[in-house]
Amino acid sequence: MKLSIRAELIYEPTEIIVSVHAATSWDQTIVSERLSVAPSIDIKFDQPDERGERRFRAALQGEATFLYEAEVDNGLRVDLPAHALQHPWRELPQEVLQYLTASRYCPSDKFVRFATREFGNLPPGGARVHALLEWIFMHVDYVGGVSTAETTAERTFVDRAGVCRDFSHLGITLCRALNIPARAVSAYAWRLEPPDFHAVFEVFLDNAWWLVDPTRLAPVQGLVRVGTGRDAADIAFLTTSEVCNGISQCVSVTAIT
Amino acid sequence: MKLSIRAELIYEPTEIIVSVHAATSWDQTIVSERLSVAPSIDIKFDQPDERGERRFRAALQGEATFLYEAEVDNGLRVDLPAHALQHPWRELPQEVLQYLTASRYCPSDKFVRFATREFGNLPPGGARVHALLEWIFMHVDYVGGVSTAETTAERTFVDRAGVCRDFSHLGITLCRALNIPARAVSAYAWRLEPPDFHAVFEVFLDNAWWLVDPTRLAPVQGLVRVGTGRDAADIAFLTTSEVCNGISQCVSVTAIT
Amino acid sequence: MKLSIRAELIYEPTEIIVSVHAATSWDQTIVSERLSVAPSIDIKFDQPDERGERRFRAALQGEATFLYEAEVDNGLRVDLPAHALQHPWRELPQEVLQYLTASRYCPSDKFVRFATREFGNLPPGGARVHALLEWIFMHVDYVGGVSTAETTAERTFVDRAGVCRDFSHLGITLCRALNIPARAVSAYAWRLEPPDFHAVFEVFLDNAWWLVDPTRLAPVQGLVRVGTGRDAADIAFLTTSEVCNGISQCVSVTAIT
Amino acid sequence: MKLSIRAELIYEPTEIIVSVHAATSWDQTIVSERLSVAPSIDIKFDQPDERGERRFRAALQGEATFLYEAEVDNGLRVDLPAHALQHPWRELPQEVLQYLTASRYCPSDKFVRFATREFGNLPPGGARVHALLEWIFMHVDYVGGVSTAETTAERTFVDRAGVCRDFSHLGITLCRALNIPARAVSAYAWRLEPPDFHAVFEVFLDNAWWLVDPTRLAPVQGLVRVGTGRDAADIAFLTTSEVCNGISQCVSVTAIT
Repeated sequence: MKLSIRAELIYEPTEIIVSVHAATSWDQTIVSERLSVAPSIDIKFDQPDERGERRFRAALQGEATFLYEAEVDNGLRVDLPAHALQHPWRELPQEVLQYLTASRYCPSDKFVRFATREFGNLPPGGARVHALLEWIFMHVDYVGGVSTAETTAERTFVDRAGVCRDFSHLGITLCRALNIPARAVSAYAWRLEPPDFHAVFEVFLDNAWWLVDPTRLAPVQGLVRVGTGRDAADIAFLTTSEVCNGISQCVSVTAIT
Repeated sequence: MKLSIRAELIYEPTEIIVSVHAATSWDQTIVSERLSVAPSIDIKFDQPDERGERRFRAALQGEATFLYEAEVDNGLRVDLPAHALQHPWRELPQEVLQYLTASRYCPSDKFVRFATREFGNLPPGGARVHALLEWIFMHVDYVGGVSTAETTAERTFVDRAGVCRDFSHLGITLCRALNIPARAVSAYAWRLEPPDFHAVFEVFLDNAWWLVDPTRLAPVQGLVRVGTGRDAADIAFLTTSEVCNGISQCVSVTAIT
Repeated sequence: MKLSIRAELIYEPTEIIVSVHAATSWDQTIVSERLSVAPSIDIKFDQPDERGERRFRAALQGEATFLYEAEVDNGLRVDLPAHALQHPWRELPQEVLQYLTASRYCPSDKFVRFATREFGNLPPGGARVHALLEWIFMHVDYVGGVSTAETTAERTFVDRAGVCRDFSHLGITLCRALNIPARAVSAYAWRLEPPDFHAVFEVFLDNAWWLVDPTRLAPVQGLVRVGTGRDAADIAFLTTSEVCNGISQCVSVTAIT
Repeated sequence: MKLSIRAELIYEPTEIIVSVHAATSWDQTIVSERLSVAPSIDIKFDQPDERGERRFRAALQGEATFLYEAEVDNGLRVDLPAHALQHPWRELPQEVLQYLTASRYCPSDKFVRFATREFGNLPPGGARVHALLEWIFMHVDYVGGVSTAETTAERTFVDRAGVCRDFSHLGITLCRALNIPARAVSAYAWRLEPPDFHAVFEVFLDNAWWLVDPTRLAPVQGLVRVGTGRDAADIAFLTTSEVCNGISQCVSVTAIT
């Protein structure tokens, strides 16, 4: 589908790395886009990484406003089929292997026993991912204010509550514990209420990456990819060298008919 | 210097990813090498990654023995100078940025206050790294059996004891907390007693990566790089799909005069 | 029932606090008992505490062997009935209140959401305790070597495996999270295989304490109480001032017909 | 000295346990006191425990205001002398032993190595306590908003920041790791700015309990004891059966000349 995106961010002075551009990835096309910055400052644009993530860096001297607007065609996203095959490690593409191991917020090494106990009796592949998504949806509540920037999947597993980022971390963790490559995706999401940056994840099965949204708050068909990485530590839309809170941020996504 | 390496590994049946080859990295030359496998099995060799790490994969049906032998010239490794400059984020090469963020064993986000309190009064760059290496050496004991495969730098900071991997995780964590890019390196180490795989780390300062050994157990000049990554989760010399203990492993490194 | 107990312990030099005597508690009678120590050393016997726990202290100069033998009548222990009533806080005996709060291994404050979500729809009291015991039995495996002396109920909840002490910590934690007073009990257990010190717990409902064994490894009717406290930190059968491993310990419990 | 205390608390409906009365402990005398409750509700007063803590329980049906006013003579509190002797375990009074073991917020078992490394070269007793108080004061910042109700001493040790409760938990933890009995004390504190409930701790040396304030925010001479226990889990001035925030609380302490 074709989507129109608008994100406005206001920041305080600090060194920043910003990831708000729609990715130039295989699965979507940027029809048009524009970044406006006020006041005018020196910005260093990085090259898209191998997953199409585009970031820019700046050293802010005072308050600054960034406005990103884009029109993106995200093609025809397909829901993960239950019969999607799981690959043995030997058959995985080399660049996918890194998404099998534990990361800052996804200590999958600690969840092997739980994941095997709970999902090991199902056929490997799509069926297991569907089952763990259902498990998360049934056992975790979407509640703001429970988690912080430090919350890991282990903690969310105990808390049984969190926001989109926590849901995704738990999903990634369980997938990796089942030897299914999984990685975090930051996204713009159509029909997400209230509108905000969204965090989802994707799994590698049947020789393809499949986007899933463990919160079930927005349809996969309306997702626009921004960043892709191990977990939230890799794909924060804002990374700052000093502790700094954005002053305000405002996101909107609308379908273009 | 020129080094001769021999590593023999015996494993039980499982899917494995092995990282024991000397890296084909900018900082060393492989003069000759040989991998012998008994019994003969199907091995999938991955391409060297952008840091020269070479891994291979196999699905073991029974006990298997891997013998890696190599002659490597690791050039002229130089100790990190105290005056090495620290770059602001904007000036860092793009591919270095990923080594600023927290990872599984290196929760640098939790150490910003400690690192700033303890080392923030020193000039940025090499002097801070020297100071934190000294701090680790003075405050942490090299003791086996305290840490496990799950031990993070946070835990080592409390335990005040660990092995090479723990020392490196703590060093990496403190560097990142000071905005200094740092990454883990698995290595063969000349003069390490007892001989074993070694874990060190490297920091990015003055437009170069500098190897350091926080344990001070082996000279930097005798290190041969194997894997390079965020932390031990990336560069394990052995990753297995099932819980599996290697049956035996034996490493030796000798200088060739 | 009437039980015969024998526990032999051999220790290395250190200061020790030992808790191996059958408790002089309301729910059991000590018919006879004997403590032999070799070599002969100075022992300080503490008074039974308000729960009947009897400990002794000694400073060992060399290896020492303690042999405790007793004949105990533990009366008629009754299984917790599902209809046992839960008291509002105001109606609890004052000395019971301390068993509502979190302790070292039982961070019940972190489990309020999970416990309420999972068991909150059942009637308060015995039914909830039965349900959480069933939950533990179905979701946690009895496996040695997964947990250590530091393992908390939070970790066991993630690991889904542990030994008797871990099962009890998880049970206590879930009870407290549901506002049900719960405390740890160390015990001799008839029919426990292999014979060893056992850890169970008890809940306060319907104006009485009820013993339960979340591992289901030994019948409640064959339990002889030793220590009673917040969690394992309170009732270790051995506490040492220095790190010290017992050299050997050997327990046996037989029914006297 | 003689102190006048006033504490006003306003709460929402819930079951509550409140600990705001000056303790009837050996070390202070209550000259006069009064508790006013509006609206009038049924209150259950517990007996003072063996440490003189007096709590009351109530089930609030609507918002309620509690006003506690008292005049207390806290005698002549003396600063801990550096030469205060440390007792071997065998010589400690029996009821003191419980303050040697780890508790919810004071995992002293994890700090044995650090404490021994850092303070083990000093003479046992008062000198070690003085040294660890100095260490805390030099290495931890008094900062609000870093810690939460869940923060343990382990976390504060990493964070290097916290409030009075965190300072005390860390102090207690280090003492216990050195085999020095230590326990938490909630208190009214003269000259504390801004006025609030205060958390300090006390150590058992030379056959007496000695109050210390690791924050150095208020003189020991102006402390009025309220609750005494293992850690904050025991002596919260307010414990509620449901999640409930006090609506307001206001404390004042003045010296009576």
